[in-house]
Amino acid sequence: MSKRRVLTGITTTGTPHLGNYVGAIKPAIAESQNPDVQSYYFLADLHALIKAQDPRRVQQSRLEIAATWLALGLDTDNAIFYRQSDIHEIPELTWLLSCVCAKGLMNRAHAYKAAVADNETDGQSDPDRGITMGLFGYPVLMAADILMFNAHKVPVGRDQIQHIEMARDVAGRFNHIYKGDYFTLPEAIVDDKVEVLRGLDGRKMSKSYDNTIPLFVSEKKLQKLVRKIKTNSLEPGEPKDPDTCTLFQIYSAFATEEESLDMRRRYAEGIGWGDAKNEVFEYLNAHLRAPRERYEALMNDPGHIEQVLLKGAERARAEANALMERLRVAVGLGRFQ
Amino acid sequence: MSKRRVLTGITTTGTPHLGNYVGAIKPAIAESQNPDVQSYYFLADLHALIKAQDPRRVQQSRLEIAATWLALGLDTDNAIFYRQSDIHEIPELTWLLSCVCAKGLMNRAHAYKAAVADNETDGQSDPDRGITMGLFGYPVLMAADILMFNAHKVPVGRDQIQHIEMARDVAGRFNHIYKGDYFTLPEAIVDDKVEVLRGLDGRKMSKSYDNTIPLFVSEKKLQKLVRKIKTNSLEPGEPKDPDTCTLFQIYSAFATEEESLDMRRRYAEGIGWGDAKNEVFEYLNAHLRAPRERYEALMNDPGHIEQVLLKGAERARAEANALMERLRVAVGLGRFQ
Repeated sequence: MSKRRVLTGITTTGTPHLGNYVGAIKPAIAESQNPDVQSYYFLADLHALIKAQDPRRVQQSRLEIAATWLALGLDTDNAIFYRQSDIHEIPELTWLLSCVCAKGLMNRAHAYKAAVADNETDGQSDPDRGITMGLFGYPVLMAADILMFNAHKVPVGRDQIQHIEMARDVAGRFNHIYKGDYFTLPEAIVDDKVEVLRGLDGRKMSKSYDNTIPLFVSEKKLQKLVRKIKTNSLEPGEPKDPDTCTLFQIYSAFATEEESLDMRRRYAEGIGWGDAKNEVFEYLNAHLRAPRERYEALMNDPGHIEQVLLKGAERARAEANALMERLRVAVGLGRFQ
Repeated sequence: MSKRRVLTGITTTGTPHLGNYVGAIKPAIAESQNPDVQSYYFLADLHALIKAQDPRRVQQSRLEIAATWLALGLDTDNAIFYRQSDIHEIPELTWLLSCVCAKGLMNRAHAYKAAVADNETDGQSDPDRGITMGLFGYPVLMAADILMFNAHKVPVGRDQIQHIEMARDVAGRFNHIYKGDYFTLPEAIVDDKVEVLRGLDGRKMSKSYDNTIPLFVSEKKLQKLVRKIKTNSLEPGEPKDPDTCTLFQIYSAFATEEESLDMRRRYAEGIGWGDAKNEVFEYLNAHLRAPRERYEALMNDPGHIEQVLLKGAERARAEANALMERLRVAVGLGRFQ
């Protein structure tokens, strides 16, 4: 247990796109192969229920995301890869934490406050209109996700730092009340250098802007999408600026440094947009072909994905069970003997 | 599954007293022996954590309460008797329900509102001061307790009716969103005829008034407590009014109708308080001796209680598991196949 433990939750809504890959999936998969780290990756499917009440969509998204991570090379021998909903100890821990977690802490949670602000903007008389207990209390579930495996580090975006602070707060309070070192206080890792990939229209690539290039689409569709990337009206032969160019950014997120330098040179030489787009498409397609084939094979064999996830759940539950046994005794819910 | 299902949660704080016995335990145990009813009795030990953060107290109280109910003849072959904390599916269901339960519903819960009112009375600037997420959200846990076993009827006190209404609300919403008859809508049974036993000082017998006669104390202690029951200054030979007399009320809660009528006659004839108290003591002691001996034997054999409760948990979990499998599929968290 002396390895550093790093835990990453994976949102299971939506279809992964190139922006997700560059910003989150690729670095996480690299980390999964690091033998000095015990990594935990989980499909945050209990969280998905807060926003998605369409069972087919939830189910499909979980399957796609699992297939995506596996197709891209997640090392499930080294890392522990599981579905949150398979770890039945997590909701149990959530309850134990609820009993030491101040309600006031949740009143100050960003997502809840944003929902209240929306209601106020809309002139709703009830500021809590449309807000469920799931939305209000999910930072406690998130604390349980993290504390269950005594994660040292949790890689997150800036908007998630508050959740890690809440998990620390709850962990510290539990340790104090029940007089023991039950929980490690987790730390957020925020990588500000992570590249934010731009989408078809030049804004941040995001589902909500409808400007994404999904990771796994057919060659034809990929080509069509690359051709739609917004460029400018410079003619072939005129020098172009790679540093303000979305096409170049997408290319260089995948290319080696050398390849990027070469493309940069050709921008200066005035490569035409049509040629540039063709080259970027060919490059992306060559890099995505193998994982796309693995992805398709996986999507056609859900039973295999199930087995991989159950194996991960078994490893995760062995740890979760041991901790819960200790916690039950700590709070006075131990066996009679 | 055509039997009527009745579910009763048992608070696991404090030591049971004669008032608990007459008002709750005795009628519940009689019901446990009814072959036409499938009864569920559970030690509400997850709820206990909201108020009690002393593990020894929680643990001791669970043991005492389990021993009490068993000593008094709970029929654990007919009824299903378990610890809430052994049913790991309950916190899981709590999360599913949280995602369909309006936060506004919890804002209006009596216990939460009372805690806020206390803070306001105390002049606290934060109305949520000292309120945990456990206290705020426990009606959702209670809904899960009830809905997990699709209970038709839940015997409760007047102050608990709101919780049953909340469980109905959440059940109805879940059935609606996920388009199925997943949950039975439970009904509260409020028995207004249940006798409220008075304590040593004539007020309602209650831990909070420190006026209780515990069910299982030594003969000596029982005698001492019966002698402390408040009477009046009427002398032997003077007629006495049984209907305003705590001593008579306690006696008649245990005695047969005939025995009560006889005692009533002797009050009219002017029985002295010393003699009356001796008789009541002898009567109670004779009735409590056998269960007290069983109680003491049980308290000396916690391993046996553990076995009884694990057997109950196994029966309860067989049902809980089957329902949860169905619910996981309903919300989109089913297996990949």
